[in-house]
Amino acid sequence: MFESPLFWPAYIKEDVLYVLDETLIPDQLEYVCVKNVDEAVDVIRKMKTRAFGQFLVVLNTFLLELGGHQGDLVKHLEEVACQLNNSRPTFPFAEVTGIVVKAAQKASVDGADVRGAVLKTVQGFLAGIRARRLQRVNEIADSINDGDSILTHCNVSGELAMAASIVMEKGKLVKFFATETRPYMQGSKFTVWELQKAGVPVTLVADNAVASLMAEGMVNKVIIGSDRSAANGDIANKIGSYQIAVLAHKFGLPLIVLTQPSRGVASGKDMPIEIRDENELLVFNGKKVFGDGVKGFYPGFDVVPHELITKAIGINAGL
Amino acid sequence: MFESPLFWPAYIKEDVLYVLDETLIPDQLEYVCVKNVDEAVDVIRKMKTRAFGQFLVVLNTFLLELGGHQGDLVKHLEEVACQLNNSRPTFPFAEVTGIVVKAAQKASVDGADVRGAVLKTVQGFLAGIRARRLQRVNEIADSINDGDSILTHCNVSGELAMAASIVMEKGKLVKFFATETRPYMQGSKFTVWELQKAGVPVTLVADNAVASLMAEGMVNKVIIGSDRSAANGDIANKIGSYQIAVLAHKFGLPLIVLTQPSRGVASGKDMPIEIRDENELLVFNGKKVFGDGVKGFYPGFDVVPHELITKAIGINAGL
Repeated sequence: MFESPLFWPAYIKEDVLYVLDETLIPDQLEYVCVKNVDEAVDVIRKMKTRAFGQFLVVLNTFLLELGGHQGDLVKHLEEVACQLNNSRPTFPFAEVTGIVVKAAQKASVDGADVRGAVLKTVQGFLAGIRARRLQRVNEIADSINDGDSILTHCNVSGELAMAASIVMEKGKLVKFFATETRPYMQGSKFTVWELQKAGVPVTLVADNAVASLMAEGMVNKVIIGSDRSAANGDIANKIGSYQIAVLAHKFGLPLIVLTQPSRGVASGKDMPIEIRDENELLVFNGKKVFGDGVKGFYPGFDVVPHELITKAIGINAGL
Repeated sequence: MFESPLFWPAYIKEDVLYVLDETLIPDQLEYVCVKNVDEAVDVIRKMKTRAFGQFLVVLNTFLLELGGHQGDLVKHLEEVACQLNNSRPTFPFAEVTGIVVKAAQKASVDGADVRGAVLKTVQGFLAGIRARRLQRVNEIADSINDGDSILTHCNVSGELAMAASIVMEKGKLVKFFATETRPYMQGSKFTVWELQKAGVPVTLVADNAVASLMAEGMVNKVIIGSDRSAANGDIANKIGSYQIAVLAHKFGLPLIVLTQPSRGVASGKDMPIEIRDENELLVFNGKKVFGDGVKGFYPGFDVVPHELITKAIGINAGL
């Protein structure tokens, strides 16, 4: 099986966190060095890494902040958690930082080794996530049939490309259509790049070609990821997911969603949607091309209601 | 009323056809000089001008080719028509070139002045189009109510901006959301630019934010143009129009379409859809960013079935 660099884009080596700089893909494969929580928040805010990579950064940041710290370690880790939680509003970082902080608090109350408890919690967490993501890759592969032509949107951090490589190793034919995913172009930059690396046939389309592709019978299945899941099955994912779901429903195509743990959120309307800086729409090649009267509106995500989702492949178990 | 440069983007002055170079907008306002049919086909193929501007180029090219021609003028004009008809497959240029060629043929059979007949036909045609487009601008203005928040896609060559300026002069409030319209960005480049020139409030959104805007109640009406109309009311318009129409229907929003003369086409399935060069998707800033294994699929247009269209504002009369 092919393993995509996007599948595990952040790891610690000799007290430094190496974070894959996804802003340089597809041109270069380079890693940013992160040494503390301030630098971690910076790479998250600047979207040097996205989605799953941000969770890896959040978890590993606790390990960085364990090293060489003097004073009340529990209080320090609580402050680290707070900084991480506030870095981006749509992501439920508090769900994972809360687990680490609780482990530290419990060790402190029990008079145990706080450092050791945090190390064990974070490393156990990371190993569990990796195992469950590999399991999901296999489940995705099981959902792909010989001859499928699959539409995807944004990027699911390696899982789809790895599932496709498993399918192809079994001698099945599969091909993908990837949307560009404006304005950040995750489809063009990441999905096309990693599917190509995996040797999977892939065709890039504009976001506005989805209905046309479906009407022409050029795709028979849709697989997308999600950034957040609610208890009722609603999901939040990259802007554009909702309209793709509406269109899949209209054209009778199954919509498969890779889902997240849902703790703390009852339904889609409880998920805050991050409105990103309008300049991400209004600036091209570093230059603002419109006069001051023009506004941009860039919600980073939208919500797909559960009734439009045919099948969810989750990594809930154990989290 | 504000008159947009996009409303009448090609005109003859002293035997030269000046064509607004829309590839330079919004940065510069410049015109390309066209002196013969070869140069005319070139500006059409390179999309220096689009949609309505291409019809102006087609018509005016006959006037260019009248000047200084020796030999069988009718045969020459037939060849000019043929070259123009073949320049882009989706546009029904043959409908207008046929009228000019027939006028020339009739004058020749009648022993009349072929040159004079062509001049009269083309100039009459242009004056009629201008009058009917101005009439349509007023009809669009009549379809806009105080407080409307209107979504539009691609660009309708000045008419929407001019209608909005009429509405605002009457003291009514109106605002627009314009899609970027990837990959050519007609929304960003032209619609936002001319609405801003007209002093109309406009917000740019990514193509994939349409369902989100509608679900949030941020728009109450959709107005789009069309590149071709069928007798049954189906229209072909810039790729992405179909999915916007499906979404407008789902969210109960009226879809108003500015339509074209429909001669020669019974329904949407009779309209050939131009598939443009995949490099228009795969190349960014002059550089192909993907390996050779990656394909692009770029249908230039899609078809909106008539049952999704709430109201058509046409310029059929007299054409």
